[in-house]
Order: sequence, then structure tokens, then C-alpha cells
Amino acid sequence: MEMESHLNAVQPLLTDLYQISMAYAYWKSGKNQEEATFDLFFRKNPFGGEYTLFAGLEDCLKFIENYKFHTSDVDYLRKTMPAYMEKEFFDFMLTIDMNDVKIYAIPEGSVVFPHTPLLRVEGPILKAQLIETTLLTLVNYASLVATNAVRFRAATGQNKIFHEFGLRRAQGPDGGLSASKYSYIGGFNGTSNVLAGKLYGIPIRGTHAHAYVSSYRSLDELKFRDLPDRISSEIHPFSQLCVTYLDKVCSTLGSSALQTHKGELAAFISYAIAFPSDFLALVDTYDVLKSGLPNFLAVALALHECNYKAIGLRLDSGDLAYLSSKVRLIFIKIAQNFNLPYIEHLNIVASNDINEDTLNSLENQGHSIDTFGIGTHLVTCQKQPALGCVYKLVELDSEPRIKLSQDIEKVTIPGRKNLYRFFNGNGEALCDFMTHIDEPAPKAGERILCRHPFGETKRANVTPTSVRCMYTLYWANGRIQETLPTWEEVRTYALGQIETLRKDHRRNLNPTPYKVAVSNRLYEYLHQLWMRSIPIGEIS
Amino acid sequence: MEMESHLNAVQPLLTDLYQISMAYAYWKSGKNQEEATFDLFFRKNPFGGEYTLFAGLEDCLKFIENYKFHTSDVDYLRKTMPAYMEKEFFDFMLTIDMNDVKIYAIPEGSVVFPHTPLLRVEGPILKAQLIETTLLTLVNYASLVATNAVRFRAATGQNKIFHEFGLRRAQGPDGGLSASKYSYIGGFNGTSNVLAGKLYGIPIRGTHAHAYVSSYRSLDELKFRDLPDRISSEIHPFSQLCVTYLDKVCSTLGSSALQTHKGELAAFISYAIAFPSDFLALVDTYDVLKSGLPNFLAVALALHECNYKAIGLRLDSGDLAYLSSKVRLIFIKIAQNFNLPYIEHLNIVASNDINEDTLNSLENQGHSIDTFGIGTHLVTCQKQPALGCVYKLVELDSEPRIKLSQDIEKVTIPGRKNLYRFFNGNGEALCDFMTHIDEPAPKAGERILCRHPFGETKRANVTPTSVRCMYTLYWANGRIQETLPTWEEVRTYALGQIETLRKDHRRNLNPTPYKVAVSNRLYEYLHQLWMRSIPIGEIS
Repeated sequence: MEMESHLNAVQPLLTDLYQISMAYAYWKSGKNQEEATFDLFFRKNPFGGEYTLFAGLEDCLKFIENYKFHTSDVDYLRKTMPAYMEKEFFDFMLTIDMNDVKIYAIPEGSVVFPHTPLLRVEGPILKAQLIETTLLTLVNYASLVATNAVRFRAATGQNKIFHEFGLRRAQGPDGGLSASKYSYIGGFNGTSNVLAGKLYGIPIRGTHAHAYVSSYRSLDELKFRDLPDRISSEIHPFSQLCVTYLDKVCSTLGSSALQTHKGELAAFISYAIAFPSDFLALVDTYDVLKSGLPNFLAVALALHECNYKAIGLRLDSGDLAYLSSKVRLIFIKIAQNFNLPYIEHLNIVASNDINEDTLNSLENQGHSIDTFGIGTHLVTCQKQPALGCVYKLVELDSEPRIKLSQDIEKVTIPGRKNLYRFFNGNGEALCDFMTHIDEPAPKAGERILCRHPFGETKRANVTPTSVRCMYTLYWANGRIQETLPTWEEVRTYALGQIETLRKDHRRNLNPTPYKVAVSNRLYEYLHQLWMRSIPIGEIS
Repeated sequence: MEMESHLNAVQPLLTDLYQISMAYAYWKSGKNQEEATFDLFFRKNPFGGEYTLFAGLEDCLKFIENYKFHTSDVDYLRKTMPAYMEKEFFDFMLTIDMNDVKIYAIPEGSVVFPHTPLLRVEGPILKAQLIETTLLTLVNYASLVATNAVRFRAATGQNKIFHEFGLRRAQGPDGGLSASKYSYIGGFNGTSNVLAGKLYGIPIRGTHAHAYVSSYRSLDELKFRDLPDRISSEIHPFSQLCVTYLDKVCSTLGSSALQTHKGELAAFISYAIAFPSDFLALVDTYDVLKSGLPNFLAVALALHECNYKAIGLRLDSGDLAYLSSKVRLIFIKIAQNFNLPYIEHLNIVASNDINEDTLNSLENQGHSIDTFGIGTHLVTCQKQPALGCVYKLVELDSEPRIKLSQDIEKVTIPGRKNLYRFFNGNGEALCDFMTHIDEPAPKAGERILCRHPFGETKRANVTPTSVRCMYTLYWANGRIQETLPTWEEVRTYALGQIETLRKDHRRNLNPTPYKVAVSNRLYEYLHQLWMRSIPIGEIS
């Protein structure tokens, strides 16, 4: 992925202070070189779903590759942290790099599930700890918004187009950039965010706003009225053609040309003169059916006479199911009356605060929308605005570590682990399977006992047709170990990944949980550890 | 505000494509120099409240000051936008600056209300339109998270301390930075985000995580066990002191030292050796009351013997009301038994997914928490993850412009307007008052007719004790016109602003709406415009 990065804020100081406090305490107590393993994982799929799309890995690797405290960072820490701290620690900070850290990860764009490590970070505890916050920041939102994008798309038929329009409602500038980038990976087709287009090569989309329409009040305000023919270059009296066609359209529709707003018509005419091959008009500034639609059709027909084809229109308010269906019927009528079949299929774009529930409801009601512009609810992930990724110490000095909790689901799975995915003969994912690092890899065609990590009685034998090892060593010896895919490749891979999931895991309403299992050996290992770690209570 | 800015993404290309399409259409149709006025405002206060804290102005002004398309930006647009566009337009883009644009705004940190313009942007329509998206991006989230911070603080007594811990759950790196910066303006006391500390001078806070505790399994692992006395520098056998005090603490509490986790004690000891004057321990890795608290108290008492004072402890799970009250009672008991009164007042910090409702519920139940660490729900603004700021054309070529809508609340208030705030003799805000730009300013002591902008019958006479003109000209003639306040000054101003609001407007449950009124002249003006713009329907 050879793209200029704009995430200048991704630097070692973009972290929680306690990481630096702990680094000092590890250093001060002589523990800093102890070899640690941390797992980065989440405990619950977002949005009430049963899958998550993993994203943010490339950003993590770039961060690790460039990890270096600058003098000004360390100067800031020297003057901000307690004065009694040893000076040598700050000198040491300037020498820290990630050359003796290893990162195993699941490929970016993979479908992933709760409790399975997405990243396994191995290295001296001081270093592996220092990078916690930044890794979480880079994975959490990227995976969340990519998953949200997949779900928006899943709520409609596969032939619909989705554009991300959320920049103005994101958490500031880079929030907007991350949203554009990762909703693209989740299957969106384009973005309105021009900088995202420049930085990441994402297709950019957009036409005009209501302000453009209200900037005209009458046809008198048009300074230019002609349009050269696309083929012959002959000059057409374009505004006059539009006025003529407006009468024809209105008489076909049985409506009155007097009801249409002439400022809106002027705006459409001037916009069409600027973009004759890309005319897509926003039609709800005054009244969609009485004004916007006839004005749009008049301009579209006039464009046709000049050998251009209009693209379509955008609805940004009102009852989108009703309006889009009504607009399509009128398109059909005009296509027939003017003998221009393509008019029937002009693009209907809808925007206006659309969320996943709106999409589901539109699908149930029936609609004629081709393209959705999704802003606020895509980028803010309204239904669940954060994915709860955590980063937990699971091994130190070759010994497993546990964080206990009253809540069994919050207990960590100790030790270094491997992760496999089992598939059936149709290439569908059957379940994920975690093993202790020392266990042999499970083999295709073998009958394998899969156990629920927490529930003693929940177990099943699985005979996978194929087995995939989920981890790749991405970072070791101070360099990225794999050629990273382009964004387009990640996007294509991600969309293929979703297809490996059975439909009942993917559906938005009451999906079937996908199973994440552990091997029998890992089950015994972790339950013994838990029993040993929890003191027996005293009742007195 | 003399601080290094890290918002490198804030550049002209950080915008929606349609702004550039419209710029071309304005340019192509000879309209680009027409003088426009745009209002930036929102229609509804967030979080079910009745006020909003306005933030993001400095970022807007910096963006305007540095507005310049780079050659690579324009090259990107040339190859991405339709090939038939005139080349001269792209050359023209390279010359665009904001020198003939004026920006009037309400000061950053002001309390603001729906429908009142926060920014009034005047200038050639092409330029004033181009900056829409970026201004919205910069104001929307900044104001939202600042308002959220105010509300979190308002949910508890005034003497509590609030820290922002949300970096890992923000919308990527700059989402995290914006969250830290603007929750500080909203009254938070510090952040865990070290980069925010460096860039914006915000106090940084944090101690250690669960991983630090689970990195020790027994006292044998301690490599260093001594601590020099703070005053005499005499070496104390610190770990031994801690073990001795653990027995004393347990016998005071009638519990068993066997029940405490010795790895946790070792972690606390090593952390205290690193930070003897700043000891604040996370006590819920194993069991707060049986293990974390006795271990913490043992170390705190041992520190006391070495002439240091512990700071306190942090709770990150469980029933925070119950645990904090229980911990305080035990602090009191230990303070009495060991005759160390300050132990009673050690700081109790609470974190763990706290939202506004949690705070309200804690207040109702009673608790002993001194300091709150708020992450996810502060930065994601869970209750309402976006503020719906919009940017609407209200005047062009000295003529008012309107965007109509079926929904009366979505109609824009046309024309250039001024905004005043009326106060009573106690300095409390009475209402906001919008006038047409040509009207004389309302005067203190005069009886003024205030009308609801939409409801014909809603009106009242107000005699303000003082009147404040809300707008300042911040940008004109190519430079920032005012010396901008420091962040500390904005924060102090903001907290004072909140105090000018009556308590019933501020309360979190069913607050009284604050009134935004228009002058009688503005009322007549806008209703005449609406009547003229909406065609009379035909019933047939």
C-alpha cells in the first residue's frame, strides 16, 4: 500500500500516560526485559451482530515500524512526570525501537469473532506494554466502521451502490478520514471526502447542495444559456430548450409548469451547462414532485437533444420509499412518452440521516433507490459507537498470566495460543478453534473435539474439510515481514471473507452465533489455571 | 494560543466533492463573485439538554488562515474530475485564498442555542461555499464533546475531579486528540492522552493497568526491595515493612492475610518503589475487598513509615457505589487505628464504562468516589454521537435566500442577522434575541418585544438589565482580527458561561427550554418571505 500517510498523530506519545508510568516501573524494578505475550481481542461483536470485520492492521504495522520518541517528547515527559524519576530512564526512552518485538496477526479484512486474539504481540514487557493504547486506537474504530459498512450493505440487495458522506459528522478531520477509508474496505463504493480520495485512491462522489439551488431566484439570473452539442459541437439555445421541455413534461404529467420554482430550474440549467455529462440534481429544495422532478426532467430531455445523457437525481428529505417509487413511475411514463428507454433507469440517489433500521424498513416497504449516501450513522456507528477491544497480558517469562473477574466472560484466556478456522466442503466457515501454542496443528479430515472455553458441557466433534491457520508473522527483526496488500486487495478479500460466513450468521435480525472453540488441552489448561488462581472462600 | 497544531488533515481538500463541483458551476456560470452570507447553526441541543457549549472556533480560523490548494491537490482533481472541465478553473483554484471573506462568530466556549448562527460567513459565494464541510467538521464534534463533558460534570457535585481516558475508543488518532482537547474546555481536569498533554498543555494523568499487577506472581520476583526515606534518605527494608503492615491491616479488618494475592502485593511494592510520592494502585485485578484493598493499605502504611504519603486507589469494575463506600469506611477505620487522619481522605478513583446515567445513579445511591475516569461514553458521545450543525445560504447579492421544508423547524431564517443575549440583574441569561442586520441594537433597560420565530402567538416583552452583542468579527482582510485566548482562558470562560444559565435550564432531567426569540421586524420579514416563496396549492 504505497500511499502517503496523513496520520501524523500516530506516534509513541499518542498513548495513555499509564503506559509510560508502567514502563518506568518495569525499568526501575529490573523487569523490562522479561518476555511477554499480549493478546488484542474484543469480547462481543458490535451492533447485535455475530461477526466483525478486522481492520487497522496496516496502520498498526506502520506505527511499529516508525516507533521512535523524539527529543521534544522526552523533554516534555521529563518536565511533566515526577522530578524524582531517574534521569537514565529518559535517556533510555530515546533508544527504544520495536526491533525485538514480534507481531502475529490475522490478515486485515478477515471476518473475526469474540475472544480470539486479532494480534498476538510478543516481546520485552516494557515495549509490548508501551504500544497498547495506540494499537487499540488503530484497530477499534477501523474495525467498527468497516463492520458497520458491511451491515449497511447487507441490509439491501447486492446491486445497490453505497457512498459515504459522513465527514462533517465525524470526530474531527482524521475521524472523517478513517471513516472514509474503512467503510470502503467494508464494501462502500465511494466517498464524498476528497482528501480520502487523494490519499487512499477511493472513488469520490458528489454533485451539489441546496445552497446551489437557492443561489438562483429566476431564469433572468442566468448569464450563460447555450450548450455545445456533445457530438457536433453545434451551439444549442439550452435554457430555451429546457423551458420548452418543462411545458412538455408538465403536460405529460398533467401538472402545471407554473408550480415549478424557476430559480430551481435556473440552477439546474447552469449546473447542467457546467457538467453536461454528469448531471445529477438535488430535487427537494422546494417540492420534489411539484417542482424538483419536472425541472430535472426538463433539463434531462434538453440534455438529450444536445446528445448528453443525465445521470439521475438525489432525494434528501421526505418519505424516501414513497418518493423514490413515485419518481420511478414518472421516469417510466416519460421514457415511454418521449421514447427514451434509458430515462426509466436514471439513477435515484437517497440520503438524509439513513441508518441500518431505515434501510431495513425501506426494503420491507419497497423502494426504487439505486444509490445510498450514508453519513452520520455510518461514521458515528450510532448503534454502538465503540468496539471494546482490549489488550491483555497472557504470558510472561514463559508462564501464563490471568486477569480474573467476577464475570466469567471477562476472564482472559491465558497462555500463547494459535487460532485455526475450520471449513466444510462448500467453503463455509464451521467454527474457530484455539489451541495452546505447543499443540500440533489440527488437520483437515480429522475428527476434532471442540470445546466451549467457559461452558464445561458444551462440546462437539468437528471434521473439517479444510483448516486454515489464521496467524501470519507480520513484524519481526525490525521489519514488516509480508508484502502488504493494496486497499483494493484488502477490500476484495474482505468481501470474499463475508461470503464464507453462512447466511444465518450474517443476517441482521437474530443471527445464529458463530462458535469459537478451544482444544481439549487448552480447555483443561485454562480451567486448571483458573482453579489455582482463585482462592477458596471462607464462610464464617 | 501558541501551540503546535497536529491537525495536518485540515486542508482545503478535506471537504465533500460537491463543494468543488459547485465551485466549478459557480465559476462557469459567472456567479462566483456574488456576495453571499452563510449561517452555521444547529437545530437541536444534544443529549436531551437545553444548552450547547460552542467549540472549534480557533481550529476554524487556523484553517481559514492557511487556506491554500497545493499543486498536488489540484493535479489530483484534474485527473479525477470530468475531463471536459475547463483547465482555467484548476489554475484559478491555485490562487484561491480567504482574504475577501469575513467571519463573525460567537466566542469559543460560549453557551449557545438552537437556530442561532454560531458563525456568520460573508464573502464571494464560491469561497464561502468551499469551506462549508471543513467548518462543520471542526465545529460539530468539538462542540458535542465539550457539551458532553459539561454534562458529565453537572451530574455530580462540583468538587469532583474528572479525567478523560477515551483515546483507545475514539475515532482514530485525531478523534482521540479532539476528545482530550474539547473535554478539557468542557471542564474536565486532565487526560490520559500524553500527546494531548504535549500539544495543548492539558494536565496528564494515569498510573498502571491490570497487566502490571499480573506481571508479578509472588514476592520472590521482586528484584529491588528497599526504599530510601524521603527526608533522611535512610534505606528502609520496604518490602518487609509492607508484609508486616499487611498483617496489621488484616488483623485490624478481621480478615486473613492469606486471602490476599502476593503477586498483587509485589506489584504494588515495585510500583511504590518507582513512584513513592505518587502511589495510586489499581485494586480490582483479583478481589477488591479481600486482596486489593489490604495490599494497598499495607503499602500505603509502609510508605508512611518512609515519610511518603500514598495518593489513593482506583476501582475499575464491580458495584462502584458499594465498593467506594465500603473502601471509605475501611479508610476511616485504618485512619483511626493507625492514628493517621489523612488515610481517611485518600483519593478513590473510579472508571469502567461510566456514562451520564451511571453518574446520576451513583449520586442517587450515594458513593465515596473523588475522581472519575471517563472513556468510551465521553469520547463517543454515546447518547447522541453527532451534533447536527448545518451551513445554510441566507443571503446572496443583498437578497435573502430560503430553504423551504415541510417541517417548519427545518426552514432557515433568511437574511443577515445579529444576535444579542439579554440578562437580568443577577447576571442570569433571560433569552437570545435575533434581529435583522439593519435594525438598531436593543438597549438595556428598554422593554423589548420578543417573538418566537415560528409560533405566531408566542411572544413576550422583556426588559433586560444588560444586553450583550454576541458576534465578534474574527476574520477579515486576510487575517485573524482578535487575539485568541489560550486554552486555559477558553476553559475558564466556558465554565463561567455555564454559570450564567439558570439551574432549571441546566438540569439533566427535563430541563426548561431556553428561549431564542426574534425581533418583531425580523418576524414579519421572514414570514412574508415564506409566504411569498411557497406557491399556493391547487385542489382539483
